[in-house]
Amino acid sequence: MNYEYDKVWEFTNEVFLKIGCSTDDAKLASDVLVSADLRGIDSHGVARLIGYVRLWDADRINPTPNIKIIHETPSTATVDGDAGLGLVVAPKAMEIAISKAEAVGSGWVSVKNTNHYGIAGYHAMMALEKDMIGMSMTNASPLVSPTFSTERMLGTNPIAVAIPADKQPPFVADFATTTAANGKLEILQRKGEDAPLGWIQDAEGLPSTNTEELKQGGALLPLGSDRVHSSHKGYCLGSIVDIFSAVLSGANFGPWAPPFVSFLPMPEDPVGEGLGHFLGAMRIDGFRPADEFKENMDVWIERFRSAKTTSEAPSVLIPGDPEREMEAIRRVDGIPINDKVVIDLQEVGKRFDLQF
Amino acid sequence: MNYEYDKVWEFTNEVFLKIGCSTDDAKLASDVLVSADLRGIDSHGVARLIGYVRLWDADRINPTPNIKIIHETPSTATVDGDAGLGLVVAPKAMEIAISKAEAVGSGWVSVKNTNHYGIAGYHAMMALEKDMIGMSMTNASPLVSPTFSTERMLGTNPIAVAIPADKQPPFVADFATTTAANGKLEILQRKGEDAPLGWIQDAEGLPSTNTEELKQGGALLPLGSDRVHSSHKGYCLGSIVDIFSAVLSGANFGPWAPPFVSFLPMPEDPVGEGLGHFLGAMRIDGFRPADEFKENMDVWIERFRSAKTTSEAPSVLIPGDPEREMEAIRRVDGIPINDKVVIDLQEVGKRFDLQF
Repeated sequence: MNYEYDKVWEFTNEVFLKIGCSTDDAKLASDVLVSADLRGIDSHGVARLIGYVRLWDADRINPTPNIKIIHETPSTATVDGDAGLGLVVAPKAMEIAISKAEAVGSGWVSVKNTNHYGIAGYHAMMALEKDMIGMSMTNASPLVSPTFSTERMLGTNPIAVAIPADKQPPFVADFATTTAANGKLEILQRKGEDAPLGWIQDAEGLPSTNTEELKQGGALLPLGSDRVHSSHKGYCLGSIVDIFSAVLSGANFGPWAPPFVSFLPMPEDPVGEGLGHFLGAMRIDGFRPADEFKENMDVWIERFRSAKTTSEAPSVLIPGDPEREMEAIRRVDGIPINDKVVIDLQEVGKRFDLQF
Repeated sequence: MNYEYDKVWEFTNEVFLKIGCSTDDAKLASDVLVSADLRGIDSHGVARLIGYVRLWDADRINPTPNIKIIHETPSTATVDGDAGLGLVVAPKAMEIAISKAEAVGSGWVSVKNTNHYGIAGYHAMMALEKDMIGMSMTNASPLVSPTFSTERMLGTNPIAVAIPADKQPPFVADFATTTAANGKLEILQRKGEDAPLGWIQDAEGLPSTNTEELKQGGALLPLGSDRVHSSHKGYCLGSIVDIFSAVLSGANFGPWAPPFVSFLPMPEDPVGEGLGHFLGAMRIDGFRPADEFKENMDVWIERFRSAKTTSEAPSVLIPGDPEREMEAIRRVDGIPINDKVVIDLQEVGKRFDLQF
């Protein structure tokens, strides 16, 4: 069943107010969270609202954080998120990156003591209206084994890069550094289908198609899937995200990253505080006049979009195309919400005396 | 047969002097080029020396470039390489990035009007001794098709990231954004072996194991190999490298990138000047005290290196391990150079009255 964007947003906003967020923070967190549903990344939207509430129940989220810069230079900063919602901490850290870029050409902010931040792309896209390139990454619950390992050492650690164009829509890449994002596994689980080989390994590190493998000690595989197809490159990418987000800031890194689900115990002997993010902004006119660049981006986009295609698809996609098209549809037709997620939302509503 | 590093370096240096480079530039270009052989990336070392000479013959390399900043802010710059050797232009641009990082915390330099720059890792690693994180990327001859395309629109567009540690050696990732680097294909060609499925497609976009496929209109595949295994993520990465290196700077981007081999014609209607690079440096102490960070990097590296392994390998590798171990061996035992490459080097030697 489909739900109007405004209705979903209002409900989300009321829930964040109920857990004690300020009016501004609840609005911001709702904008970020529900942007995932609009853009078709259903795993990161309201499906996670109950998860955030449970983290708050477990005293792992501070609804009134004092988010502050604890170290900085003109173009860099480390921010302490004070255990706030990543949905609030990350866009505020991105504002700092943007204001540093306004002052000295670029701004780079590493964040500690934060929580899951929704879709990476939201934060990167904040730079677009300023004629800047935006970047965003975060570490996350350990679910991924490095090449040659059976241990879960990294999260799906996404990277987003948003680049403005002129008449063309912007280039927006937003992807997990694994072969398959966890959300794709969840879709197969609901359908009762097997996963393709190359997405998952079992507890011994052997290829598996069982979508429930992670519950039995298995792991997601880094982008590339296996050594012959260069999984070490996906492992490099996930590691870079982990180090920029968590070692630069002083958050928990690698296997110490706190799990999103509150029923899993926190790792023992933490090596830092909370999760970590890394956000960046570069002014286009720090390199060349912005209108020249954006005209060239139009040429880039038009050339790639018109490249000859295989029999698999009618045209070559530009990063950001599928999500933008999905948003246009869902703003009109509403957001389809899975039955199980509706039950979760009704449970949250009941608790706070809200109707979903 | 193995050749001593000093002998290979001396010969390379003499050749760069013969084509008209200054003493300093010849030395720098030789350091960069032969570092590839030392680190075991044989495809990017002296095997390419004859290629650079042929580019010079074709008037595509200026041995005495006036490398200059044409646009800047305190943390960003665009550099015009004046058609110099990328082996010289890139390290000089990296020096600019490093000096901006010294001044304001980070430095980011996009370069146009340049040529192939050897291994990406060399330039990124320049930041290490300054307690900075170094980054390096470049666009390259178009050999790679985006997901759903049969056209060659991108180069193998490598990314390198170098991160200092304390007692542990640094983390150095350096990888092409394709499933297989072109050098790996060349090795199979020499052995007369097939390529694994997932590295190459034929002219119709169908999977191929034929290592000669690129001569018949085929293409290398982006990291991920196919849509099911997320080749669109490799396509995103290669595109980001192309845009940062060439659209930001005003170089030729996408399918307009000039070919490395001089016997291929230059693309018609160029959209910029030469190839492009992108170089960056971030001061560790722009985020937190460098000694704290480096101690944490030791913890990171030790934890990953000791992660439980599959039956495939005795230990989990840290990015940079294989190249560092190779360098230690080759500094003692010398550099093995393929017979075909020896013939090329002797041809170059004969022309310039030098002995190889």
